[in-house]
Amino acid sequence: MAVEVVYRSSWDPERLFMDKAEADRHDKMLELADALASALQRAVPSLSEQQAEEAGIFMARHRDQFAKAFKQNLEALAEVGEPAETD
Amino acid sequence: MAVEVVYRSSWDPERLFMDKAEADRHDKMLELADALASALQRAVPSLSEQQAEEAGIFMARHRDQFAKAFKQNLEALAEVGEPAETD
Repeated sequence: MAVEVVYRSSWDPERLFMDKAEADRHDKMLELADALASALQRAVPSLSEQQAEEAGIFMARHRDQFAKAFKQNLEALAEVGEPAETD
Repeated sequence: MAVEVVYRSSWDPERLFMDKAEADRHDKMLELADALASALQRAVPSLSEQQAEEAGIFMARHRDQFAKAFKQNLEALAEVGEPAETD
């Protein structure tokens, strides 16, 4: 058989990628999600770690729409909002 | 006495401003906070309205840092994070 190259993010070692660019995107998304989650938990102490993580992942997954919203294009947020995918 | 012009945002009628531009900024911040809060509540159903509102206000107050974070400049978030001011 042959040795194959597989890529994964250290944030999420179970998830393997054949394509490096895709692994990079996943890694960046999780890094952003983590930074957002910790900022939210510092600011809203009543948030559980789980809630902060879910919110962080959700925003990181929809980063383009949130970036637009922060430029006061609030309609961008209307498109997002189904419960955070668990995959 | 004289009649004075005072400005306020319909989002926060108790808060009065002598300066229209300041009232506009406050109004925009609260509008963004509200849009963020509803997006978060749709995505993280376990969030209470109060938690979503606090998170929304916090992010809207620090919109510049969050806008940078969404461009993957995560250090921008390190500066923010004290519990949401209640004023």
